[in-house]
Amino acid sequence: MSERIINFSAGPAVLPEPVLSQAREDLWSLDGTGIGVMEHSHRGKAFLAVYEKTVALCRELASIPDNYKVLFLQGGASSQFFTIPMNFLAQDKTADYLITGSWSKKAIAEAKSFGTAHTASSSADKNFNYIPKEIKYSDTQTYVHFTSNNTIFGTEYASEPENPAGSFLVCDASSDIFSRPLDISKYGIVYAGAQKNLGPSGVTLVIIRDDLIEQGASDIPTMLQYRTHAENDSMFNTPPTFGIYIMGQVFSWIKDQGGLSAIQKLNQRKANKLYGYLDSSKLFQGTAEVDSRSMMNVTFVTGNEDLDKKFISEATAAGLDGLKGHRSVGGMRASIYNAFPEAGIDKLVEFMTAFEKSNG
Amino acid sequence: MSERIINFSAGPAVLPEPVLSQAREDLWSLDGTGIGVMEHSHRGKAFLAVYEKTVALCRELASIPDNYKVLFLQGGASSQFFTIPMNFLAQDKTADYLITGSWSKKAIAEAKSFGTAHTASSSADKNFNYIPKEIKYSDTQTYVHFTSNNTIFGTEYASEPENPAGSFLVCDASSDIFSRPLDISKYGIVYAGAQKNLGPSGVTLVIIRDDLIEQGASDIPTMLQYRTHAENDSMFNTPPTFGIYIMGQVFSWIKDQGGLSAIQKLNQRKANKLYGYLDSSKLFQGTAEVDSRSMMNVTFVTGNEDLDKKFISEATAAGLDGLKGHRSVGGMRASIYNAFPEAGIDKLVEFMTAFEKSNG
Repeated sequence: MSERIINFSAGPAVLPEPVLSQAREDLWSLDGTGIGVMEHSHRGKAFLAVYEKTVALCRELASIPDNYKVLFLQGGASSQFFTIPMNFLAQDKTADYLITGSWSKKAIAEAKSFGTAHTASSSADKNFNYIPKEIKYSDTQTYVHFTSNNTIFGTEYASEPENPAGSFLVCDASSDIFSRPLDISKYGIVYAGAQKNLGPSGVTLVIIRDDLIEQGASDIPTMLQYRTHAENDSMFNTPPTFGIYIMGQVFSWIKDQGGLSAIQKLNQRKANKLYGYLDSSKLFQGTAEVDSRSMMNVTFVTGNEDLDKKFISEATAAGLDGLKGHRSVGGMRASIYNAFPEAGIDKLVEFMTAFEKSNG
Repeated sequence: MSERIINFSAGPAVLPEPVLSQAREDLWSLDGTGIGVMEHSHRGKAFLAVYEKTVALCRELASIPDNYKVLFLQGGASSQFFTIPMNFLAQDKTADYLITGSWSKKAIAEAKSFGTAHTASSSADKNFNYIPKEIKYSDTQTYVHFTSNNTIFGTEYASEPENPAGSFLVCDASSDIFSRPLDISKYGIVYAGAQKNLGPSGVTLVIIRDDLIEQGASDIPTMLQYRTHAENDSMFNTPPTFGIYIMGQVFSWIKDQGGLSAIQKLNQRKANKLYGYLDSSKLFQGTAEVDSRSMMNVTFVTGNEDLDKKFISEATAAGLDGLKGHRSVGGMRASIYNAFPEAGIDKLVEFMTAFEKSNG
């Protein structure tokens, strides 16, 4: 089998190698059925077993309470941006949005065509390099929406904000879901595109409280009602079966690592190594404020655009791929999700140290 | 590698074995990049090459005119059911629907909440076992929607209906797309969930004319506007990269078979073998009217439910999987899409002949 390189891609991103090895077998024949995982009917016994295992592992890993459903939807987080206000934000109501980057800006933009979307906090004043502590809520009786990790700017909420009584908390957790334990009971809805911590692009995990499934609008298209998918175990129409399968394999792998607490420790150790080096470096500096730093996406610059380019180009040549920052901010970004190996961090730090020596 | 069995699943369905073999390699490392196909950034060089190859092959196979775009969306045909009227059917307008089964019924149901949806023809009177010849159009100036192949009832349009001047033709081609040549210039929109003839579930191919992209509503969520996806080469958000990759591999395989005309001949030969046997059998009979028969889904019964059950159970035990008819109609169904091997038909006919001998 050909060699693999170190992949810092922000998403779609590196997956655990044991998951890929198993997928290679199951593509041809799933569990000895003589039919590959992509070729099984979603209503057949073999795929139903995959589905049930995936849901059960998801519930177990995150200790999801019984009054929440686990759904596998399509359309990415971007489709949740409009589906949530379409279901829960009537024209005469207000929802609160915490604005910490490009994705929360996109989310609030979609909400504005349904009802009033109030900006309760924002870090736009410093190009989103921090998580605001001060929040000025409206008198919302609907929901508060936030983005737990900001892939582009390298910031992350240390824990979920408290939302006003009478509202529910909605979280776009696309880029840090299952990187640490989370208390689902504090949320109304948690959603995440799979392509960073959970699997391939094309499947969105939605964890939603039962009363919200009931409350959601019923005068909207069938496919956009959460009840449609909840009542049909995500199989009202053909679900993205391969994505669900991979997600189940990733959940198994997380469990094998010791679950979310163990993964958190590993992620902290990985991130600390890199931030530790950045804090000691005279050439590189992190761009996020220290208390807002993301464990998943580490953003940094040299302060010299040409040198940034040189670094990225030499790193790529050395087999450290995907370190270019998002096109909207420049600089560098190391995305080090759950499946990113610690050895990759060591190699990066080694490479940066050498680069600093010859370019410092 | 473990043995594979004969898979008559209606979708997700059998895929070409050369595609699976290649996918097993590329899951680990795509084109020698050291990064698997699911793990590549959708904005990176390696995936962009996959995307461009997939679009180019799609255009080449179906001779798609320059004034049409090829889009890869999510949410299945079921999401097109509402997205199309949301874009093109204003409250004071009428669209015409040709009703030939469960899927067209679902499509018209979604349209009714946007404007007037007129049933221009229906085969409901005979449980959808035929394609109606008579069509009574309204004075529609919007669109005519039809389902080219009816997976559940085993019927298929021999060619597209003619739509009134001033309207455009919309086709849900989920279960027979690229099984034969089609003249795209006769259509405004052709859409298809991938999981029957094109790839895994979770990606929807949409071929849409440029003027309709412009005409579509602009006061609806960004993700539901065709222009969003057309202007961003299907990458406004992260597309289902693995599904697009597999679709590209399937297009390559179709090209290797000689393209759509060659595939049509093969499909006709496969279907004729099975229908030929059904017409000669004293035990089994086809359920679709002869001139409405589908090349993709062959539905049949013995006329005795217990015997049907016995047949399905013995066939499954003999390695002929997925022959049970849809739960809404019962009986048997052999789904024999592009990738279904002719040898599988021979085995089925052989098995049916033997079953008829011992149960006739």
